[in-house]
Amino acid sequence: MLINVAETVVADALRGMAAAHPQLTVDVENRVVVRRDAPVADKVGLVSGGGSGHEPLHGGFVGPGMLSAACPGEVFTSPVPDQMVRAAAGVDSGQGVLFVVKNYTGDVLNFDMAAELAEDEGVRVAKVVVDDDVAVTDSLFTAGRRGTGATLFVEKIAAAAAEEGAPLDRVAAVARQVNESSRSFGVALSAVTTPAKGSPTFDLPPGELELGIGIHGEPGRERRPMMTSGEIADFVVDAVLEDLRPTRPVLVLVNGMGATPLLELYGFNAEVQRVLSGRGVAVARTLVGNYVTSLDMAGCSVTLCQVDEELLRLWDAPVETAALRWGR
Amino acid sequence: MLINVAETVVADALRGMAAAHPQLTVDVENRVVVRRDAPVADKVGLVSGGGSGHEPLHGGFVGPGMLSAACPGEVFTSPVPDQMVRAAAGVDSGQGVLFVVKNYTGDVLNFDMAAELAEDEGVRVAKVVVDDDVAVTDSLFTAGRRGTGATLFVEKIAAAAAEEGAPLDRVAAVARQVNESSRSFGVALSAVTTPAKGSPTFDLPPGELELGIGIHGEPGRERRPMMTSGEIADFVVDAVLEDLRPTRPVLVLVNGMGATPLLELYGFNAEVQRVLSGRGVAVARTLVGNYVTSLDMAGCSVTLCQVDEELLRLWDAPVETAALRWGR
Repeated sequence: MLINVAETVVADALRGMAAAHPQLTVDVENRVVVRRDAPVADKVGLVSGGGSGHEPLHGGFVGPGMLSAACPGEVFTSPVPDQMVRAAAGVDSGQGVLFVVKNYTGDVLNFDMAAELAEDEGVRVAKVVVDDDVAVTDSLFTAGRRGTGATLFVEKIAAAAAEEGAPLDRVAAVARQVNESSRSFGVALSAVTTPAKGSPTFDLPPGELELGIGIHGEPGRERRPMMTSGEIADFVVDAVLEDLRPTRPVLVLVNGMGATPLLELYGFNAEVQRVLSGRGVAVARTLVGNYVTSLDMAGCSVTLCQVDEELLRLWDAPVETAALRWGR
Repeated sequence: MLINVAETVVADALRGMAAAHPQLTVDVENRVVVRRDAPVADKVGLVSGGGSGHEPLHGGFVGPGMLSAACPGEVFTSPVPDQMVRAAAGVDSGQGVLFVVKNYTGDVLNFDMAAELAEDEGVRVAKVVVDDDVAVTDSLFTAGRRGTGATLFVEKIAAAAAEEGAPLDRVAAVARQVNESSRSFGVALSAVTTPAKGSPTFDLPPGELELGIGIHGEPGRERRPMMTSGEIADFVVDAVLEDLRPTRPVLVLVNGMGATPLLELYGFNAEVQRVLSGRGVAVARTLVGNYVTSLDMAGCSVTLCQVDEELLRLWDAPVETAALRWGR
């Protein structure tokens, strides 16, 4: 591992992030990443966060057109309410703040507590819980479905609504609509090694894969001998479609878990598009890359989000963050 | 590996790239990636290419403000002259084309042959050979120094000059200036596995690292027991500075080899900045991420490019590609 010691991994990364991105204000001590121009007058703020180890999620999504602030926890560990309250207070313009929370028990509890504390300080808070992973119901750290790739869609699209001046209840409604319109399924081709443990957190022998893996290495649906990229695409896309049953065009996220080369992710995307086309699903936009990762895990996930014209317009709106960036 | 069969890895990736990036014209059969609006009237074209397995280099750098076209070869294998001639003819507006070539024997020979063939077809061609890697002189596939991370700086900055209407000789001069102003050094924390071989191409035991690794796993300077991120930054930055001896501010590329988590790359960047600051080197801009990779290799490299005001202005100019994107 390219680290000093496990204890300083998150603080070291925040210092390095601050040096690379002068458009962010990085509070290393209190572990809050904020867009430099926050609070933006008359705009609803968006705050997210979660365990570290999923980069660029969430710090890489802070900036105009996406998150106002992010709160990184220790690796695979929820941030604490103090971080979230500080972030909310720092980005609130008086229009209130939306918390975007991935559905893990610790995150949900801590964001709930933070919402109460922030409200006590006079910040209006709404919350959306992202739970898009169809692989399993209930998991190691989750009651209900896990929150994974759809977080990117929720953060981007709801923030675009906020950027246009939508009020808090409307921004929250858009976020919930995006979550309800999204489903994901992930696959591991290797285990993940955390800095604290220093060795793989679960056992996945070479030549096998885990279908339905979580982004912390939580068990999935089943383990099988290695499959081809095409066979994996058939399995994964069908698992998502069976649950989502889209009637409109979809946004496609072909996401790498961290250690899978971009060359392979693009090849996998060709197979994902083949399956979608074969099932009669129209593709509106496609994003391929490492966005919601699990440290050094090899593997991939697919997230589909079905969109109407309004959600697609918000998706296409300009965004200017470290990891996601486009203009129109 | 997330593939179908080794034989189709590059073609599969190109099909997936085409589906994800409608702003590119991807000729899968002939293996040429071209920006859709090429040729751009009165603009010098920039064509690069090389073996696949280093993504997003080069296809991810095609678009306004950077490459006009890229020619991907088989994994770790030079593209053939036919690809380069086709690319040159497709992007030439009459103002000529610059070939950006990484210094590997096969690439240099093939781009030389392509330059002759293109000239026969009436396309004026200039060439810059990138040779920034200070780790070793002469290597497995190279006479002289290897071309690695500086390729990104050369392609971005020379293309910005072309975008402003500079003639071919000026664009080539800028490219050469950037190459001469840049030095790199890489480190492997694990070996690389190619699809064709299916197992690591060299032996690097856990708990050891290779200082001075090439982007195809070519041997470096020495092998050592694992070092901390800070110790690696000391060694790598000093190796670069000893050769570059910068007198002006530098652009910093902290590059991941593929499988090293972004969390660790940011932490490593903090150490790189510490060393530069300690050596009195001013940093103008910093880029952190996986840009010039070696499939699933874990590790990193540092490239420094010293810049005057003109090169910095060209670096900051807008760019709109799959992997590098900003406006001003």
